[in-house]
Amino acid sequence: MTTTEADVPAPSGATVQDTSGDGHEHATYGYHQQKDEHLKRLRRIEGQIRGLQRMVDEDVYCIDILTQVSASTKALQSFALQLLEEHLRHCVADAAVKGGAEIDAKVEEATKAIGRLLRT
Amino acid sequence: MTTTEADVPAPSGATVQDTSGDGHEHATYGYHQQKDEHLKRLRRIEGQIRGLQRMVDEDVYCIDILTQVSASTKALQSFALQLLEEHLRHCVADAAVKGGAEIDAKVEEATKAIGRLLRT
Amino acid sequence: MTTTEADVPAPSGATVQDTSGDGHEHATYGYHQQKDEHLKRLRRIEGQIRGLQRMVDEDVYCIDILTQVSASTKALQSFALQLLEEHLRHCVADAAVKGGAEIDAKVEEATKAIGRLLRT
Amino acid sequence: MTTTEADVPAPSGATVQDTSGDGHEHATYGYHQQKDEHLKRLRRIEGQIRGLQRMVDEDVYCIDILTQVSASTKALQSFALQLLEEHLRHCVADAAVKGGAEIDAKVEEATKAIGRLLRT
Repeated sequence: MTTTEADVPAPSGATVQDTSGDGHEHATYGYHQQKDEHLKRLRRIEGQIRGLQRMVDEDVYCIDILTQVSASTKALQSFALQLLEEHLRHCVADAAVKGGAEIDAKVEEATKAIGRLLRT
Repeated sequence: MTTTEADVPAPSGATVQDTSGDGHEHATYGYHQQKDEHLKRLRRIEGQIRGLQRMVDEDVYCIDILTQVSASTKALQSFALQLLEEHLRHCVADAAVKGGAEIDAKVEEATKAIGRLLRT
Repeated sequence: MTTTEADVPAPSGATVQDTSGDGHEHATYGYHQQKDEHLKRLRRIEGQIRGLQRMVDEDVYCIDILTQVSASTKALQSFALQLLEEHLRHCVADAAVKGGAEIDAKVEEATKAIGRLLRT
Repeated sequence: MTTTEADVPAPSGATVQDTSGDGHEHATYGYHQQKDEHLKRLRRIEGQIRGLQRMVDEDVYCIDILTQVSASTKALQSFALQLLEEHLRHCVADAAVKGGAEIDAKVEEATKAIGRLLRT
């Protein structure tokens, strides 16, 4: 999406070199390319949370509030799943291609993150 | 929180009579008394969601974003649990005391809400 | 639990009198009436778990095993929900009718149990 | 899956050559090496489910049964997580190394399986 990315033919897109001239190497991650979509999703979730505040403020019936909480949680988990998919596709697959011990660390890290999602 | 509530010493707080003179009976629900606490919680969650947007915007590492998603989901579920507890204590218990068929409807409704929370 | 309760033909069915003649008062809970259905459900889940063992033993593809795990977890949660519904309908409603402090304890206990289900 | 892989002492252990002499290539998956551990875990879960049947049969208090359901669900999810970790380490990483379109399919498949686990 950015010129930088188009210039570098990095097939996995896991990291791109910083060409901004500020002397830093910027690691950008798998979700980089869907950034706009992610931000849109998160703004929608923010709107849902504000909707919940309005509902509490207006004394809406508890069960209706709970239904809205379920919808927000579902939206958050759907966001998490998409992020995770991109992470697996880029960061984890990248580590696999590189070889060495990094793949084990990456897989363990991803599994722990999935475990945290499951336990909520 | 409202003068109405302070006036009526309803111990269960499940419903209070409207004394506002507009001729309506206002049903206020179990969570009414914890309204401020609920709003504070929800504003904190809103802050977490905005934090997520910042993280995505600043290309923070995917796994760290997922950890924050887990924290937000946990906070939402914790809010839901508190709401549910008040609902059981007031609305469901109230229906039980009243007797009749309403308790069955209330319990079924609450169980379905719990099912929706579980499935997210 | 009390003799009083056994004497009254409690409409909620929360407790039944012991007619086994062994001189003990048996407390039976809300799920009593669906006992057979519960046992049937649990035996089906047991079968699913044995199916998982067969799948592992026969080197079935990981993803197919995970699908079966999801089905078993869903079946367990569905069983939990039904148990919870009966618990709310009988034990919790019963405590509400009795009045006093017990309803608070019962609701807190039920909420904690729901919290444990949510966190798995 | 390919002869090449069987020849190389693949550190990932994703596939092993069939030495049974039946002329078939057996694909064995990531979880192969932990087979005994998996079976032991599943037998323990099976024991928990049988324990639940006993509890229902002996009219144990609903909340105690729900606690045991939570423990069983947690054990199932823990099994799923371990299986998933091995799947990512072997099958997904394997597809990444091979290159081509397979990695996308594998990642999508794994993400869907995680989604199913999350939604239970």
